[in-house]
Amino acid sequence: MKLIEKMSRVLSIVVIALLVSCTQTQKKQDQSTKGFPQFLPEDKPDMPLSKAVARNFDTYDTPHLEDNELYTQFKYTEIKGLDYNNFDGTITRRDPSKVIKRNGKYYVWYTKRHTSVPVLGVKKANDTIAARDWDLAEIWYATSTDGFNWKEEGVAVARPAKPNPGWRSVTTTDILEWKGKYYLYYQAFQIDPAARGDDCPVAVSYADSPDGPWTPTHKIVIPNGTKDEWDGFSIHDPYPLVYKGKIYLYYKSDFDTKARRVRMQGLAIADNPLGPFKKHPLNPVLNSGHETTMFPFKDGIAALVTRNGNEHFTIQYAPDGVNFEVKSIVEMMPYAPSPYIPNTFADDGNGRGITWGICHNIKAAAGKGRCSILMRFDCDLSLDVNDPEFKKHEVIHKPDFYYRYGLSKVQRERIEKETSTDINQ
Amino acid sequence: MKLIEKMSRVLSIVVIALLVSCTQTQKKQDQSTKGFPQFLPEDKPDMPLSKAVARNFDTYDTPHLEDNELYTQFKYTEIKGLDYNNFDGTITRRDPSKVIKRNGKYYVWYTKRHTSVPVLGVKKANDTIAARDWDLAEIWYATSTDGFNWKEEGVAVARPAKPNPGWRSVTTTDILEWKGKYYLYYQAFQIDPAARGDDCPVAVSYADSPDGPWTPTHKIVIPNGTKDEWDGFSIHDPYPLVYKGKIYLYYKSDFDTKARRVRMQGLAIADNPLGPFKKHPLNPVLNSGHETTMFPFKDGIAALVTRNGNEHFTIQYAPDGVNFEVKSIVEMMPYAPSPYIPNTFADDGNGRGITWGICHNIKAAAGKGRCSILMRFDCDLSLDVNDPEFKKHEVIHKPDFYYRYGLSKVQRERIEKETSTDINQ
Repeated sequence: MKLIEKMSRVLSIVVIALLVSCTQTQKKQDQSTKGFPQFLPEDKPDMPLSKAVARNFDTYDTPHLEDNELYTQFKYTEIKGLDYNNFDGTITRRDPSKVIKRNGKYYVWYTKRHTSVPVLGVKKANDTIAARDWDLAEIWYATSTDGFNWKEEGVAVARPAKPNPGWRSVTTTDILEWKGKYYLYYQAFQIDPAARGDDCPVAVSYADSPDGPWTPTHKIVIPNGTKDEWDGFSIHDPYPLVYKGKIYLYYKSDFDTKARRVRMQGLAIADNPLGPFKKHPLNPVLNSGHETTMFPFKDGIAALVTRNGNEHFTIQYAPDGVNFEVKSIVEMMPYAPSPYIPNTFADDGNGRGITWGICHNIKAAAGKGRCSILMRFDCDLSLDVNDPEFKKHEVIHKPDFYYRYGLSKVQRERIEKETSTDINQ
Repeated sequence: MKLIEKMSRVLSIVVIALLVSCTQTQKKQDQSTKGFPQFLPEDKPDMPLSKAVARNFDTYDTPHLEDNELYTQFKYTEIKGLDYNNFDGTITRRDPSKVIKRNGKYYVWYTKRHTSVPVLGVKKANDTIAARDWDLAEIWYATSTDGFNWKEEGVAVARPAKPNPGWRSVTTTDILEWKGKYYLYYQAFQIDPAARGDDCPVAVSYADSPDGPWTPTHKIVIPNGTKDEWDGFSIHDPYPLVYKGKIYLYYKSDFDTKARRVRMQGLAIADNPLGPFKKHPLNPVLNSGHETTMFPFKDGIAALVTRNGNEHFTIQYAPDGVNFEVKSIVEMMPYAPSPYIPNTFADDGNGRGITWGICHNIKAAAGKGRCSILMRFDCDLSLDVNDPEFKKHEVIHKPDFYYRYGLSKVQRERIEKETSTDINQ
């Protein structure tokens, strides 16, 4: 009896195994003959996939774009309260800092140029006539209780006397709070603007309150690299965050030839706001973008990668603050965006994202001159907000918008000539 | 002497090896202490790189975006010669076909709706009142000698009598030439538009000349998949090319729920223009995009991936016509673009790319109605053209453009409420 029992057990196991195997084969056959499913699955289905569809699951956090916390549309609102002399080119405000909230008010710092005549170019520039939009500028600041209406409070960092860093212009600032003190980092132009108009290192001023007064150290805090390194000429858009207990200051540099200018972004890390800052050995950390715009997101750092380079118009994320990956492709990105980051410097490994900030627009001149203005942008890159209007995949413009970006005269003539001799069929 | 010779040889080899090793170590040390170079190299440098910078060499064909043959800006020109009844919504032209050149003229086919009243929606629709912009439409065509001025030639494919496929509307056509005959593939609406307004299969008509007359087969040539497959309800934008000696017909389908609509693109291959078409087992082949726009490029197929999905606003390339990879990210893409492809159906493994085509804009109505118009787009996605204006990295708009895309009333109210209760610092 025992032998029979054993035999029957073995037999039943064999039968079950055969049945299971048979069912699985059937299932696989069903899958291989069935097409991709009608309802897009959240997880990668177990079936042969094209490279593109595999990517939709492997590369992106969510197969439906609208579920992606790092995807958004951007909307824009005019800022009230700042005067521009009818946009005649004598007043420019640009390159805003992050917005921080203190004393029940939102604060933003920015580059302000207020010259008696508009920008006249490199050849006509002197001690009072600006060569460029950001020449002969100072750091000013404004406050707001609602984020839409702003009051300009005055100058924060004036140009220091020659030969201190920034004697020609101080611009493109950003704010850090560290152990109860405030630090403004900014581009410190200290060469004749006719030389290389964009070359500069970074200097810093500090204060006990966001309202100042600000004390400049009169020292370069982020120096340029050597002339054969990527950041040998400019350190732009210094952008400090607090991350992993240290100061993570991101910056942009322009390099390569003038005709083939490349913009990438790097990182310098310090334990003390006045330095020394150690440049990250893997710099640059972003291959694209024009201005630095980062924010703590979950336990990593997210970045808006704006208008230049192979990965322009993307939002990226680095779980370590260094190795960024593309998380979404967006349109109508703000230029020089700087967000309001709730609890900006909390460094709690729980970044909640952003919903608004200040950016600039450099084409605000009424006539031909240079006039840049500050603008508000809104978006949904926040884990705490879910606004379906911001998650739409595309903006559809009216025809006149497209016609504005028509062919140049040179292009039209070239095309007409090529068309008239087109022998292809 | 022999022993000494041997020993000295061994010694000299050891010395050389030591010297080489020493030099290499020095070289490596130089590299590891030097930053990323001032001039962006064409090839990936042998040094530690961040993920993003490694990607700039590994993922993209050229580290400088402006060198990328599959990167372009788009510019738009109004088409002359087509009337729209002052854009009152009674005439719509949309979803153009590829442009082909025959008999010294450029030809384009498109969806034309000409109804006595504008679109009135699903509830008011009947046999003469359209439910949607593409309802009650026919396939018309126009010709041009310069690509800017067009002459409407008349109807190509009219709506057939019920119950033939397309009795309700024939739309969104594209053209194939195969062995001296011409084939127009199109969406054949054959259900009440109140049901699912976008559901349809594909039908085909043929002719001996691009000027017609066109003979409909009155048969479905690309059928829908089963209801649980991705293309179970719609086969949109049939787009035939000749590739590897066969007919490669790309198409788009809409799937998933209405609120979370997904658009992907697939491929059906045939040896004969009237079928049978065999759907590719790896379908879908593109995870994003709204309309199908492909062109032979080198020995593969390139695609414009328009407004929907994770990879919207990209240009992609598949060396095998099936497995597409992102080659560039672009802005201001045309909607429903269909290019002029020189030697469209040559199938010579030497696709030269495209420089212009026709697209549509669905927001042309003077008032509230629906009116779509055809537009010309120009670009530089051609191996034979090098137009630096099209290789610029970004378009900078004036402020009014951004303000048009401001917050909705609902959004502004939500944001003001959230701001007034913002307790973050």
